[in-house]
This record gives sequence, C-alpha cells and structure tokens, in this order.
Amino acid sequence: MEINPIIIGILAGCLTAVAMIPQLVKIITQKKAEQISLGMVIILITGLSCWVWYGILINDYPVIITNAFSILVNLLIIIFSLKYKKK
Amino acid sequence: MEINPIIIGILAGCLTAVAMIPQLVKIITQKKAEQISLGMVIILITGLSCWVWYGILINDYPVIITNAFSILVNLLIIIFSLKYKKK
Repeated sequence: MEINPIIIGILAGCLTAVAMIPQLVKIITQKKAEQISLGMVIILITGLSCWVWYGILINDYPVIITNAFSILVNLLIIIFSLKYKKK
Repeated sequence: MEINPIIIGILAGCLTAVAMIPQLVKIITQKKAEQISLGMVIILITGLSCWVWYGILINDYPVIITNAFSILVNLLIIIFSLKYKKK
C-alpha cells in the first residue's frame, strides 16, 4: 500500500502543533513557570514563524496552518510564564 | 530579489531544532524538572518522528536532518527530566 506523504505531513504537523498544549495546561494549573526556559519559547516562535514563511513560499497548507497554531500556543505559554514566573 | 524557499526551510528547521536546547540546559543546570510536562515531550517526539518519516517520503533533507536532531535533544530532556523530577 502506497502511503500518501500528505497524510504523514498532516499527522506530524498536528502532533507537533498540539505538543505544547500539555505544557501550557501545566503552567496554568500549577501557576508556576520558573523552570520554563523563555529562550526556548522565543527561539521556537521565531522558528515556527520561519516555517509559516516556508509554507507560504512552497504553498504547503499543512505547514502553514499547523505552525501558525503552534505560534498561538507558544504565545500563550510566554504570557502565562511571565505571569507566573517568580519576581 | 527571489527568496529560495530552501533557505527559509533550513533556517526554520535549524531554529526549531535548537529551540529546546535552552530548556535542556536549564534542566541540567537547575537540576529541577517538576514543571516540565513529559506529555509535551512525548507528543513532540512522536510528532518529530512523523516529520522525519514525511521528510523521507518527500525526499526533503532539511526536514529529515533538523527533526532527527530535535528528537535527540528531546530524548535528552526526557532522560534528565526523569532524573531530576521529584519522587
């Protein structure tokens, strides 16, 4: 059986897009974020933005949509991390 | 000036591949990991593995190499998180 790459791409994109959700939920429920690296989140958002740009250039909708969603989740992680990081 | 998508793809891949390194360094230096969501890391590794599979199917080396590197970093995050998570 031939596997359609687009199916694997969408699966991959969906998994990496939702991956940060458990971390976001953990930050919000624990109200703690000192151990979260903001460097990680900032590099991630920069990289995800480049993925969206790449998706636009090669006209690949799974790449554009899944990475745009990841950016949203990571922006929420930044907002809640800053809120809960110890002063 | 026409931008070569491959340049943006490589830039995107490199950024998202190295993004978790600051988190790994933070876990190792702080010797703390209770706030790190293992759910996040497990979903991420599953998704990254699908990206490598997708890269193989569409013959896209930047996708294969950068995601394989991310898998390595995330495996180290799992190992050190388990080591430093409070019993």
